[in-house]
Amino acid sequence: MPVNLPVLNPAELPAVAGVSLAYAEAGIKKPGRKDVLLMTLAEGSTVAGVFTKNRFCAAPVHLCREHLASGEAIRAIVVNTGNANAGTGEEGRQRATRVCDAVAAELGCARQQVLPFSTGVILEPLPYEKIIAALPDRQTADWAQAAEAIMTTDVLPKATSRQIVVDGKTVTITGIAKGAGMIHPNMATMLGFIATDAAVPQGLLQAIVKEVADVSFNSITIDGDTSTNDSFILVATGQSGVDIAERDTPAFAQLYQALREVAEQLAQAIVRDGEGATKFMTVKVEGGKTIEECKAIGYAIGRSPLVKTAFFASDPNLGRILAAIGYAGIEDLDVEKLSLYLDDVLVAVNGGRNPAYQEEDGQRVMKQAEITIRVVLGRGEANATVWTCDFSYDYVKINADYRS
Amino acid sequence: MPVNLPVLNPAELPAVAGVSLAYAEAGIKKPGRKDVLLMTLAEGSTVAGVFTKNRFCAAPVHLCREHLASGEAIRAIVVNTGNANAGTGEEGRQRATRVCDAVAAELGCARQQVLPFSTGVILEPLPYEKIIAALPDRQTADWAQAAEAIMTTDVLPKATSRQIVVDGKTVTITGIAKGAGMIHPNMATMLGFIATDAAVPQGLLQAIVKEVADVSFNSITIDGDTSTNDSFILVATGQSGVDIAERDTPAFAQLYQALREVAEQLAQAIVRDGEGATKFMTVKVEGGKTIEECKAIGYAIGRSPLVKTAFFASDPNLGRILAAIGYAGIEDLDVEKLSLYLDDVLVAVNGGRNPAYQEEDGQRVMKQAEITIRVVLGRGEANATVWTCDFSYDYVKINADYRS
Repeated sequence: MPVNLPVLNPAELPAVAGVSLAYAEAGIKKPGRKDVLLMTLAEGSTVAGVFTKNRFCAAPVHLCREHLASGEAIRAIVVNTGNANAGTGEEGRQRATRVCDAVAAELGCARQQVLPFSTGVILEPLPYEKIIAALPDRQTADWAQAAEAIMTTDVLPKATSRQIVVDGKTVTITGIAKGAGMIHPNMATMLGFIATDAAVPQGLLQAIVKEVADVSFNSITIDGDTSTNDSFILVATGQSGVDIAERDTPAFAQLYQALREVAEQLAQAIVRDGEGATKFMTVKVEGGKTIEECKAIGYAIGRSPLVKTAFFASDPNLGRILAAIGYAGIEDLDVEKLSLYLDDVLVAVNGGRNPAYQEEDGQRVMKQAEITIRVVLGRGEANATVWTCDFSYDYVKINADYRS
Repeated sequence: MPVNLPVLNPAELPAVAGVSLAYAEAGIKKPGRKDVLLMTLAEGSTVAGVFTKNRFCAAPVHLCREHLASGEAIRAIVVNTGNANAGTGEEGRQRATRVCDAVAAELGCARQQVLPFSTGVILEPLPYEKIIAALPDRQTADWAQAAEAIMTTDVLPKATSRQIVVDGKTVTITGIAKGAGMIHPNMATMLGFIATDAAVPQGLLQAIVKEVADVSFNSITIDGDTSTNDSFILVATGQSGVDIAERDTPAFAQLYQALREVAEQLAQAIVRDGEGATKFMTVKVEGGKTIEECKAIGYAIGRSPLVKTAFFASDPNLGRILAAIGYAGIEDLDVEKLSLYLDDVLVAVNGGRNPAYQEEDGQRVMKQAEITIRVVLGRGEANATVWTCDFSYDYVKINADYRS
């Protein structure tokens, strides 16, 4: 079961003015399941996104990049689960295009104004005709239902919301995400959508989406596998009447902080629902020369099967963390300056076991469902945080059974 | 159980003239177990080694590097299991030094003429006094017993041998290795020792050890975790009377080929005995621009938990292989030129599913215990091969239980 991931309460997920949501049941993989989400955006909305750096990126990712680059105003987002439309070559591109055409025809807009997203199994042809057939029967959805409509191996839907007040006007930020496996995002994760009814010009929105992705979705790992379909999209409809045109304003700072919180919470929700997860670990790496090296160490720890199985067993076999730090690729790392903490317990100091460390202290922390691993490098001022989960029998079970 | 790994036959592991083997039972972790190996080398032997690039490398690795660099002739190799003496700081170094001193006193040589090796749990103090106490009670061993004396989580001991004839004289090459987890060597794996009774000058031996490591131990992965203790040592005693002083001779080619075969077979034996392994996979990447990029793709496939669990399940969910290729870090990879084979089955062509591919064909190959994944990149002449195993429930079980 997910680690401390609350069941969604629709009342806590306010609508975002200018965003209409609907789901359909296309029977892509199984009948009777919400497997298509249609998000329609009011005129004047701006949209920005970041996408997977996987070279085998999916056909819909190619189309998203092109449609965003076309300069046309985006009016709709269409998502299907059950099929990733990746590793499908030119045929996959044509099938994704037909879905965009169908949505454009429904809404009376151009193909380039539709962004398509797919998630599910790779290397199988997208049953686009099922999606097109189901679209006219779509049902109006709230954000909780929208979050449910994009799930694959997720146990629980993931959504969160913030509201800020600017000049007496309320601005809403609501987002959804999905993902539980093939999670080691490089640009963004499959799939995150955050909408706000503030107005934000496209260029600024694009800058924000990249920055926020780096400290949220690009800071998590479940299995070290970067998906072919990772996408993180930010929508700003402007319907609140609040205009955020520049960086150096208090209103920008408020919105940025709220967006970051929503993205961070969604990214953490993906880890909490990581396939087979029983523990949620925060890896803080401090005192590095660069953010990149801190992140490299955080990821080495966060993706090590040996570290992850030790946490599953609540076994303070913490030398495995040192080994992961050691192979993270920091050529000039001086381990003698390094300290390692497990929550408040100082485990290693000057690169060796803390003489005062006792196994019971490590054991006490390891039994918790949420644990912070803190690495202090003592070589600079940079910090980074990575979130990850443990590796259990159920991870193997889920991934050995996934298609059956 | 290990995948097609034969039980050792001592009769097939000829002694190497100039190498004396002995084991002891020091009770480092458990009593009544061979946990110390002493290898004594005849005067005139040359020794070369490569060691882990892990920055948290173990105290004995530091000493090995220093002793090899001292220029003193190496006369003994001492190995203990049950404790890695890594993450132990200055204290760990002193303990390893005491073991060297004790061996030097036994043999009447200098401390610098002894190479120490440790394998086992990280971050715990080495019980050096147990090792020193056990040394005088050592028993003469053959190579099969030597292989057994260096095992940790290994299910079976690993050793192999070759003999070549040069100018009518027989040259023997016999080697042993251990390792089943924390296997993703970067320089060499924990632990491989190969000895020959050919004479090879130290400089040439050092070049050979690096080259052979790259195509054997440095081409395997079990869990993506690079150990703190990886070491691969080549010993040449010269006792056969065959002198291999230069590269461009038929005798060198014979010896090199035999050394490569022994190293490759030992490296593969480690993968066959990978923790929880049920399948042995050979990943061949062909047609790359450089060997490095071929290896990067081979390792991305070989360490992907999603690929490894699919193989455990015999599920031809082969899109996971494409995803791994896509995130291997080859920025300019043109996936439309890429083909993927599973043994003789063409799965993907031009970056998409082969229209003639049928699930039954993939299923047939996936059921085998030994499978070749072949990736043809179509962008150059370079090739590389990586060996790996699947990821099973038992991997989690072994690593969640390892210290208990």
